[in-house]
Amino acid sequence: MTENGYHHERVLTVDTMNPRVKEVQYAVRGPIVLRAVQIEKELKEGVKKPFTEVIKANIGDCHAMGQRPVTFLRQVLALCTYPELLEDNKFPEDAKSRARRILQSCSGGSIGAYSASQGIEVVRQDVARYIERRDGGIPCNPDNIYLSSGASDAIVTMLKLLVSGEGPTRTGVMITIPQYPLYSATLAELGAVQINCYLNEEKCWSLDVNELHRALEAARKHCTPRALCIINPGNPTGQVQSRECIEDVIRFAAEENLFLMADEVYQDNVYAEGSKFHSFKKVLFEMGPEYSEKVELASFHSTSKCFMGECGFRAGYVEVINLDPEVKAQLTKLVSVRLCPPVPGQALLDVVVNPPQPDEPSHATFMEERTTILTRLANKAKMTQEILNQVPGIQCNPVQGAMYTFPRLNLSQRAIQEAKEKGQEPDMFYCMKLLEETGICLVPGSGFGQREGTYHFRMTILPPPEKLKIVLAKVKEFHQRFTERYS
Amino acid sequence: MTENGYHHERVLTVDTMNPRVKEVQYAVRGPIVLRAVQIEKELKEGVKKPFTEVIKANIGDCHAMGQRPVTFLRQVLALCTYPELLEDNKFPEDAKSRARRILQSCSGGSIGAYSASQGIEVVRQDVARYIERRDGGIPCNPDNIYLSSGASDAIVTMLKLLVSGEGPTRTGVMITIPQYPLYSATLAELGAVQINCYLNEEKCWSLDVNELHRALEAARKHCTPRALCIINPGNPTGQVQSRECIEDVIRFAAEENLFLMADEVYQDNVYAEGSKFHSFKKVLFEMGPEYSEKVELASFHSTSKCFMGECGFRAGYVEVINLDPEVKAQLTKLVSVRLCPPVPGQALLDVVVNPPQPDEPSHATFMEERTTILTRLANKAKMTQEILNQVPGIQCNPVQGAMYTFPRLNLSQRAIQEAKEKGQEPDMFYCMKLLEETGICLVPGSGFGQREGTYHFRMTILPPPEKLKIVLAKVKEFHQRFTERYS
Ligand SMILES: Cc1ncc(COP(=O)(O)O)c(C=O)c1O
Ligand SMILES: Cc1ncc(COP(=O)(O)O)c(C=O)c1O
Repeated sequence: MTENGYHHERVLTVDTMNPRVKEVQYAVRGPIVLRAVQIEKELKEGVKKPFTEVIKANIGDCHAMGQRPVTFLRQVLALCTYPELLEDNKFPEDAKSRARRILQSCSGGSIGAYSASQGIEVVRQDVARYIERRDGGIPCNPDNIYLSSGASDAIVTMLKLLVSGEGPTRTGVMITIPQYPLYSATLAELGAVQINCYLNEEKCWSLDVNELHRALEAARKHCTPRALCIINPGNPTGQVQSRECIEDVIRFAAEENLFLMADEVYQDNVYAEGSKFHSFKKVLFEMGPEYSEKVELASFHSTSKCFMGECGFRAGYVEVINLDPEVKAQLTKLVSVRLCPPVPGQALLDVVVNPPQPDEPSHATFMEERTTILTRLANKAKMTQEILNQVPGIQCNPVQGAMYTFPRLNLSQRAIQEAKEKGQEPDMFYCMKLLEETGICLVPGSGFGQREGTYHFRMTILPPPEKLKIVLAKVKEFHQRFTERYS
Repeated sequence: MTENGYHHERVLTVDTMNPRVKEVQYAVRGPIVLRAVQIEKELKEGVKKPFTEVIKANIGDCHAMGQRPVTFLRQVLALCTYPELLEDNKFPEDAKSRARRILQSCSGGSIGAYSASQGIEVVRQDVARYIERRDGGIPCNPDNIYLSSGASDAIVTMLKLLVSGEGPTRTGVMITIPQYPLYSATLAELGAVQINCYLNEEKCWSLDVNELHRALEAARKHCTPRALCIINPGNPTGQVQSRECIEDVIRFAAEENLFLMADEVYQDNVYAEGSKFHSFKKVLFEMGPEYSEKVELASFHSTSKCFMGECGFRAGYVEVINLDPEVKAQLTKLVSVRLCPPVPGQALLDVVVNPPQPDEPSHATFMEERTTILTRLANKAKMTQEILNQVPGIQCNPVQGAMYTFPRLNLSQRAIQEAKEKGQEPDMFYCMKLLEETGICLVPGSGFGQREGTYHFRMTILPPPEKLKIVLAKVKEFHQRFTERYS
C-alpha cells in the first residue's frame, strides 16, 4: 500500500507478458552481437584487447561493410526527395525522367504522402514487367504484387495469413534447416509449429525430397502441415538449388497440398560456375497447367541484397500466385492496417527493377558499378571457401550464391564438454571465444538450426577483399589455437 | 484426381486462414475508399458523374492534400541520400552539418545499411533531448527510445508484448471510443479483448473517469484488463484533453494497475485558444515519485503529422517509462527480428527533433514554413467547425487539435431504415451516397466506434482552404438534400 492508498504492482513483467514473444529467438542479432557492440565501446574507452577493431561478419549488410551505393539509384532517390534538384543540370536525364515518373505516381506528387497500402501502382507495374523479363515472358499481374517494408515484412504477413488452429489442427510450417531465423522467430510468435527438414550438407546443402516426406509424415502426427518455405539461394548455407530440386519441391507441394513460400532475395547473387538461379514461378509455369494453375506460391524479393545492398531503405515485395481471391482481399485489408510500406523504399525498388537501358546516359556507369560489385562478391565467395577448406577441422561447401558460408566445425569432446558446463551451445562457445580473442563477430550455427551433433558458424563474404583475407587468416589461426587448447 | 494422380485442394481459403485476421477491420482504407478509387478510374475513362474529381478527406495525409514538404527536412535527406551533394554550395551549411552527423552515425556511413534494431543511437539521443525540452527538463534516457516504422509499428509492438492468456485471463485493453482503428484491428489480430470507454461528446469529447470505471468493472467479468490507450490530441475527434483529465487517467491507471499507452502523434497540432498539449510523461512526473516511479507508460510519436506531415517515410518512436528491464530486453529482441526501421525515416526524425536554431542559416525559412502550415491548419480547423455547425442536422465540436472533425449527424428513421435494408450502417449509407453524388470521400463514424444510435463521419481539415470551402459547401448541400429525401 502506498500513501495514496493503492497497491501498485508492475503490470508488464516476464511472467505476465505475451508468452509467445518470450519464445522468439533471433540469433543474427543475439548475444554475440550485443557483446560485439559492448567490445566496440570498450575499445573506444581505451580498454586493451588483442585486436583494434571489431569486424562484423555476422549480418548480410553490404554498405555496413564498405560497399558504396550505386550512383544511379541514389541520384533518382535524391531527386525524388528534393525535387528542386530536377532543375540541376548535374543530374543525368534518365535519372530525372525516372524521378518524375515516380513523383507523378505519388499522391500529391510527394514521397512524403502515404501510398496505396499494397504499394504504388506504377511501381507494382514495373515490378511485374521485371519479373516477366526474369522469367522469359511468363505473365505477371501487378495486382499480385504487394510491396513491403523489406522482404521480412512480406514474409511475416504471409505466415500470418496461414496460421490457425489449436492442438492437432495447429498449422505446421515446413522449413529447410539451417534456416534464416526470421522464420523460426515468426512461427514462434504466431504460435505455429515449425517443421524442420534438413538440407543435405554432404551434397552441397541440396534438398532431398525423401527428407521432405520424412519430416512431413512425422509432423502430421501432431499438427496440420500447410506450408513449405524454401530459401534459394540459401541463407545461411550459400547453395543454389538445381532445377530438378525445385521441380521435386513443387511436385511435393502439389501432392501434399502445401502452400509454397519461396524466399528468393538472393536471386541475383549466384557466383559458382554451373549454378543458375531458377525462380520457383518459372519452373512452376514450365511444369504445365497441372501445376501452374494450382500450386499456391508466394515469392519474396528485396532491395537489401543483390548488387545494390540497400538494406536501410526497407523495400521488398511478394508476388502471390494462385492465391484465393477472397484471401487476397483479406491480405489487402491486413496490409492496410499499417498504412503503407516506406515510400522512399518503393521508389528505390522501382529504379532497381527499371535500371538504365543501353541507350540511356547512365547505362555505362551503372553496368560498371553493378558488374564490379557482383564480380567482387564472386571472388570473395571463392576465396572464402578456398581458405577455410585449408584449415584442418573446418569443412566448407562451395559458396554458390547468396552472401554466406556455413562451414562445419570439428569440435573436440573437451570443447563440447566445456561449453556444456557453461550452459552454452558448443558453437556459441566457439564464436564467443573467437570474438573475445580476435574481434571477429560471427553467428553460431545453433542460431540457424543444424543436425544434432554438428557445429557450424555463419560468416558473410562481405568485408572488402583485403579485410576478408585478414578475417579468414585470423579464423584459421584461432581455429588451430582452439583445437590445440581443447585437444 | 488429376492426371498425375493427386487431388489438389486450395490450401489457403477464407475457411482455413487465420481466423483472427478475418476479424480485423480497417475503415480508414475500407469499402468507401475502394469505391473512391474505382470512381477515380471511371472518371478517367470518361464516365459522366455529377462531379469532376474525387476529394479524399478520409485520411490524415498532408502531402496528398497538396501541402509542400518543408525545405530543410528534404535538403538534409537529399544530402544523406546522395552525399556527393555535400560538395554542392547550393545547400546551406546547417543542412550539411546535420547530414554529415547522421551519415557518421550510420554503419559504413550509408543510410543503405541496416541500423541497430532499436534505431540509430545518435537519433535516439536527439529524440531524448527533444523530449526533455518539450517536458521542461524532465530527464529522458535514449535507452528508453525505440525508433519505429511509423508510430503504427511501435503501437503494434507494444500491444504484442502486453497480450496473453485465454478465457477470463485473456488480456483486455481499454480504448477510448471513437478510436483510431489501428487499435481495434491490432487487438483483433492479437486475440485481445477490446474494452470500449466512451468519450463524452456533449463535453467536447472529454474523458470522464467514471466512464473508465464503468468500462473496467464491466470488463473484469470476462477478461483481465491490463492496459489503457489514450489518443491525445484525438483522432478522429479532434479534442485536446485537459491537464486535469490526464491526471485523472494517470491516477486511474495507477490505482487499477493498468499499463498506459499514450498516442501523442498530434502533439504539435493544437489550434484552439485555451487548449494546450500536456504530455502524459510530464504530467506523470509532476505528480511526484508516487506515480512517476511506478506507472508504466509508453508514449508514441510520429513524423507523419504535426507540421511536416511526412507519412511516406514511415518514421516514429515510442518512449517507454518504468518498463521492467527484463521486458525491455524482450522488446529489444522482438524488434530485432524485423532488422531495423527504415533508415531514411530515422534520418528525417533526427532533423525534426533537431531543427535549425536561431543562429543557423536555415532558421528563418524553416520557421516561416512551419508557422505558415500550422496557422493554415488552425484556420481550417475553425472554418470547418463553423461551416458544419451552420448545417441543420449536423453538430460539430470545436476542432481543438489533430486534423479531423467528427460531427454528429441527425439521420431520420427513414434513412436508418433504408440503410438497414441494404445491410449497411446508417452512416456508411450516408457516406456512400455522399461519395456517389459529390465525389467527397469521408469515413463513416461506425469505422471508429460511436455510442449506439449516434451517427457521425470523420473528415480531415487538410484540403487547401479553397478546396475545403467547396467540400464543406457540398457536404452542406448534400446533407440538406439527403434530409429532405428521407424525411
Ligand atoms: C533469406 C532472407 N530472407 C529475408 C531477409 C530479409 O531481408 P529484408 O527484410 O532486409 O528485405 C533476409 C535478410 O538477410 C534473408 O537473408
Ligand atoms: C492516432 C494515430 N496514431 C497513430 C497513427 C499512425 O501514424 P504513422 O504510422 O504514420 O506514424 C495515426 C495515423 O493517422 C493516428 O492518427
